[in-house]
Amino acid sequence: MGLVFKAKNYTFVSLFKSMNRRNKFMQEQPQKILVVGGGSWATANIKMLTDNAAPKEIFWWMRNAQAVEDIQKFGHNPNYLSSVEIKVPAQNIATDLKGLIQKADFILLNVPAAFLKNALADITAVDFAGKKIISAIKGIVPDENLIIGEFLHKYFEVPFKNFLVISGPCHAEEVALEKLSYLTIASQDADLAAVFAGMLNTRYIKTTTSDDIYGTEYGAVLKNIYAVASGICHGIGYGDNFQAVLISNAISEMKDFVDAVHPIDRDIKESAYLGDLLVTAYSQFSRNRTFGNMIGKGYTVTSAQLEMNMVAEGYYAVNCLHQINKQYTVSMPICEAVYRILYKKHSPVTEMRRLAEQLS
Amino acid sequence: MGLVFKAKNYTFVSLFKSMNRRNKFMQEQPQKILVVGGGSWATANIKMLTDNAAPKEIFWWMRNAQAVEDIQKFGHNPNYLSSVEIKVPAQNIATDLKGLIQKADFILLNVPAAFLKNALADITAVDFAGKKIISAIKGIVPDENLIIGEFLHKYFEVPFKNFLVISGPCHAEEVALEKLSYLTIASQDADLAAVFAGMLNTRYIKTTTSDDIYGTEYGAVLKNIYAVASGICHGIGYGDNFQAVLISNAISEMKDFVDAVHPIDRDIKESAYLGDLLVTAYSQFSRNRTFGNMIGKGYTVTSAQLEMNMVAEGYYAVNCLHQINKQYTVSMPICEAVYRILYKKHSPVTEMRRLAEQLS
Repeated sequence: MGLVFKAKNYTFVSLFKSMNRRNKFMQEQPQKILVVGGGSWATANIKMLTDNAAPKEIFWWMRNAQAVEDIQKFGHNPNYLSSVEIKVPAQNIATDLKGLIQKADFILLNVPAAFLKNALADITAVDFAGKKIISAIKGIVPDENLIIGEFLHKYFEVPFKNFLVISGPCHAEEVALEKLSYLTIASQDADLAAVFAGMLNTRYIKTTTSDDIYGTEYGAVLKNIYAVASGICHGIGYGDNFQAVLISNAISEMKDFVDAVHPIDRDIKESAYLGDLLVTAYSQFSRNRTFGNMIGKGYTVTSAQLEMNMVAEGYYAVNCLHQINKQYTVSMPICEAVYRILYKKHSPVTEMRRLAEQLS
Repeated sequence: MGLVFKAKNYTFVSLFKSMNRRNKFMQEQPQKILVVGGGSWATANIKMLTDNAAPKEIFWWMRNAQAVEDIQKFGHNPNYLSSVEIKVPAQNIATDLKGLIQKADFILLNVPAAFLKNALADITAVDFAGKKIISAIKGIVPDENLIIGEFLHKYFEVPFKNFLVISGPCHAEEVALEKLSYLTIASQDADLAAVFAGMLNTRYIKTTTSDDIYGTEYGAVLKNIYAVASGICHGIGYGDNFQAVLISNAISEMKDFVDAVHPIDRDIKESAYLGDLLVTAYSQFSRNRTFGNMIGKGYTVTSAQLEMNMVAEGYYAVNCLHQINKQYTVSMPICEAVYRILYKKHSPVTEMRRLAEQLS
């Protein structure tokens, strides 16, 4: 009996130690995280956060009350990635952003950049105080011409050390299918980046960390513009040979710009930059490429937007970037061609023929 | 009358001057160029040389006597790019390589690397003496483990200054369709590169020149291996997200290798390197990707080769590269994974799962 007791005791102690280590790794308290946005990428974030093993409480905000009700009732987002089973408790999904922010330590922003100001209309710096804010937004805030980190810093007093960017070559549709994907988590606080990366890793999500919040944000913005360019060229009738040249020139243009904005030693060939560009410019899932394709085929901007029923971030981004680059004056022939086509109503055929002369 | 005469005379002199300039630019004599090989890329080369405005005489060698007869009779290559109209004079197309080499100043080699030794079996250094030799071959000579420039230098005493490489993101199928494409002409002799580039430019072909014959050759070899890798991953079921990560890692692996072999200041993002990789790894036309896809789906190497009826250069290249890299010992996890799958019969699923752990 004594022996058995000892053996049991040993097992118990060993189990206790193991749980302790696990709890320490998991920051002892379950993290509370709020996802802001109801689109496909936000839904994918919900899925990876849920499938990740670290104990956490997930909250979800979206504007659409009908969608909230549907998800609460049926456990699926009716509008985006509707095959994904949503395991967030019904009471944690709501349309009251202010209330949800109070409950969370991590706020993952995932609405289109063009709608961010509107989404945060009732939110103040006090609401965000002490919270870690993650941007999954790939865009620039219109009118402000600020990337998300700068915007939150300026208007919500979010310190850069509390700010993170989630990026990577990652279509939401493939997350829904649990296809192996790699994300980059960027923050100036390396420990914070590692903690948040630990909340996302799953069998199908691998994460790396980075300290380059500017490069990661701008890279994500630019790649949408290049995907629009790529789509325009495809729509006009340029082939794969040209596409390869366009993208090779695009990654150099991206490097020139981000190096001008934030000159640190970065390798633009990494997945967070080049990979993100490739997945967007080459993939069938890319809404920016689809939008560009329609423009190349002769749709007007308005009719392409109506037809798609989705926001092509690149459309807004190229205007912001055009304004921002007045300050840096980096040579960006691809962005400029897209800008002139979308905002100056220049002929896609003429602009791309002119662009082709500048590529090599 | 005098006035009229003077005016006429003036016109004549002016015309004469203009012709003279043109002749000087065109090297005064029409160039004589021989294309060696009857495949799709060779047929595309014939088309671009024909459509280019510079006066030249084109010769064409291929092994297949029936194909020669068909082309002479019908003006189309029956086996490859058969929509392309062949305007090479019938008497300039033959199966006698030695005889054709004697007639030409430029020899454009365009047979698969695996068949090069065989094709040149009756040719000696004397035949090649004083000729400019261009390689459009994207491969390594098996058993020798030499890139084409090195092989010709070693066995045919071709001086490097007489050697050129033609490369670029360029599927033959798109040349047939006259889709805008960019080629890079590399030679250690910059003037020679410019002269040959001037023989290729057309409305749909733009050329740039480079002095990096090693990087261009090895880049073209490696991209075929990465296209096989890409196909294998696709065949297994990896998605676009993973593909983007794979290619981002591949371009870094390529840079590490070519920098080790020939350390010069090169920008791996240029079209000749990155663009060539992209077009091969992403395009539906890539036979290497198709071959890899079949391997990923479970075909054996032999059955995939039989099914395709085309040579996937990457299959031969990865073995050569594995041998060559014993000397340089560059870390090349993607190439090594492909090598083990194709030559060591390792499971594609297991190898790619292991590779995935090494990517970021």
